[in-house]
Amino acid sequence: MAVYTDVSAEDLTVFLRDYDLGPLLSFKGIAEGVENSNFLIETGGGRYILTLYEKRVNEAELPFFLGLMGHLADRGINCPLPVKAHDGQALRKLAGRPAAIVTFLEGVSFRRPTVAHCAALGETLAGLHEASKGFALGRENALSVSGWRPLAEKAGARADEVASGLATAISRELDDLETHWPRTLPTGIIHADLFPNNTLFTGDQLSGVIDFYFAATDAYAYDLAICLNAWCFEADFSFNLTKGRALIAAYRAKRPLNRAEIDALPILCRGAALRFLLTRLVDWLNVPPGALVRPLDPMEYWKRLRLHQQVVAPSAYGLID
Amino acid sequence: MAVYTDVSAEDLTVFLRDYDLGPLLSFKGIAEGVENSNFLIETGGGRYILTLYEKRVNEAELPFFLGLMGHLADRGINCPLPVKAHDGQALRKLAGRPAAIVTFLEGVSFRRPTVAHCAALGETLAGLHEASKGFALGRENALSVSGWRPLAEKAGARADEVASGLATAISRELDDLETHWPRTLPTGIIHADLFPNNTLFTGDQLSGVIDFYFAATDAYAYDLAICLNAWCFEADFSFNLTKGRALIAAYRAKRPLNRAEIDALPILCRGAALRFLLTRLVDWLNVPPGALVRPLDPMEYWKRLRLHQQVVAPSAYGLID
Repeated sequence: MAVYTDVSAEDLTVFLRDYDLGPLLSFKGIAEGVENSNFLIETGGGRYILTLYEKRVNEAELPFFLGLMGHLADRGINCPLPVKAHDGQALRKLAGRPAAIVTFLEGVSFRRPTVAHCAALGETLAGLHEASKGFALGRENALSVSGWRPLAEKAGARADEVASGLATAISRELDDLETHWPRTLPTGIIHADLFPNNTLFTGDQLSGVIDFYFAATDAYAYDLAICLNAWCFEADFSFNLTKGRALIAAYRAKRPLNRAEIDALPILCRGAALRFLLTRLVDWLNVPPGALVRPLDPMEYWKRLRLHQQVVAPSAYGLID
Repeated sequence: MAVYTDVSAEDLTVFLRDYDLGPLLSFKGIAEGVENSNFLIETGGGRYILTLYEKRVNEAELPFFLGLMGHLADRGINCPLPVKAHDGQALRKLAGRPAAIVTFLEGVSFRRPTVAHCAALGETLAGLHEASKGFALGRENALSVSGWRPLAEKAGARADEVASGLATAISRELDDLETHWPRTLPTGIIHADLFPNNTLFTGDQLSGVIDFYFAATDAYAYDLAICLNAWCFEADFSFNLTKGRALIAAYRAKRPLNRAEIDALPILCRGAALRFLLTRLVDWLNVPPGALVRPLDPMEYWKRLRLHQQVVAPSAYGLID
């Protein structure tokens, strides 16, 4: 949530000469994304988001992310469309950083999505999975099952600083997930981080999906499991069955789930909860002294995980066979 | 340069019901201002800036600042116009903070203003001084001459951590300024912080003056001296006479300077340089450990001050009698 690299109006004016966007009318650094510097710019051609990719981003992966957004936008998904400069490239350099301009999407992110929002999300998620087919590039999901043990080891025994017994509980869950993780489900490009703050709504209409920087090749149903975790729990960590049902039904209406995907849903939900528990845990244990940004609470996902561990059938999520 | 208070779309939607601005279409936290949280919001009615005033702001002074902006905007100055809610008030509450919505102004802030920009600034500054006449409220300038010694004492001997001999040099300058500071110049409401980053331009046209949170009652010519410091020095701290001349000439064309104001210009420039030297020095010596924002270098104003100390006549600034 910060602007890390400052850009002057002078430099931006020169940068824009390589685009067909007209003159610069205004620009503001915006508090969006945790990894990159983002600016809302307005030119004679309209509104755009300018992103400068900061050091934590692997530059070699940017063509995948930008290419994917372009592929999806071309197929009618409401996602930012990378804008090409005169040289045909969307990925350029500004202030010594890799930089790209994408189209601005209207809408606001709701913190407490309603049932209608969950239904809109389900439809959009399935549409995104369908539209991603045919995209030429792939990207291994470093934050899928094989990436969790290294994260758990990074936290190590210090997990118990967050909650007593957490280290052992994680280790046990990991053993179980590694053994039983489904590895033959239908696979393609997934968003992998489709939280409410990465969607935009105008009223009940989902007007935008943003932040594709975790997108990777993985099981489609795992993306659905991530959304069930991120969208269908209430503030008290109870699971809202009505929201789950709306999300899953809207998804299936657009992309049917096969038997294996349905049966895998409980373990996929456990995996998704563990993935966010682990990344949050590592961030939590590694807050630099004096940091202004408080990391997200890993226990919010521990509470979700414990609920998933009790689930005996996919119907617990509102899935009607 | 940060958003300190987070606002949810849900809360903002409710907040906007008290205004005639139409539905919320988008909003982004923006990196503007160092003291408050700012959001660029778009509603059915257009674009606005929402400001949440953080703890360092004295709430009792907000009616002065908002009233002044309204007074100036009504008189044709391109400054943000506070928007009144249904109850007739522009100052309201959101997320537990005093909050106000003002109109959005187009334009960009240049870091290296040109001669044309300096001329536009001079005209706008004089217009602002003329337009502020008749504003019913006043505000003592806590950062004018009487406020400098307490700041110098706050830095104390630690000033020498920044540059050897600085503490003594400041103390001597302060003695001299306190003795010779002009106290009978024409006085009214001044902006008092009209740096390039507080102005917006579309091309060479000055399209906006923003950030009135240092505005106070003080000598008009002191405001001009602040601008000469902030706009007319080059990156190597040389004074650009052409810019100075353009700024002063454009100012005088709209608001004539009297003899006393002209003669006082060198000492006013020294005072303005000392004022920013001192506030930057105190900030520099009080950076919280681990802070993400690097404070502004006080020595940039020490270098300006030393130049002003050599000035023997107002003509050094491009003022033609």
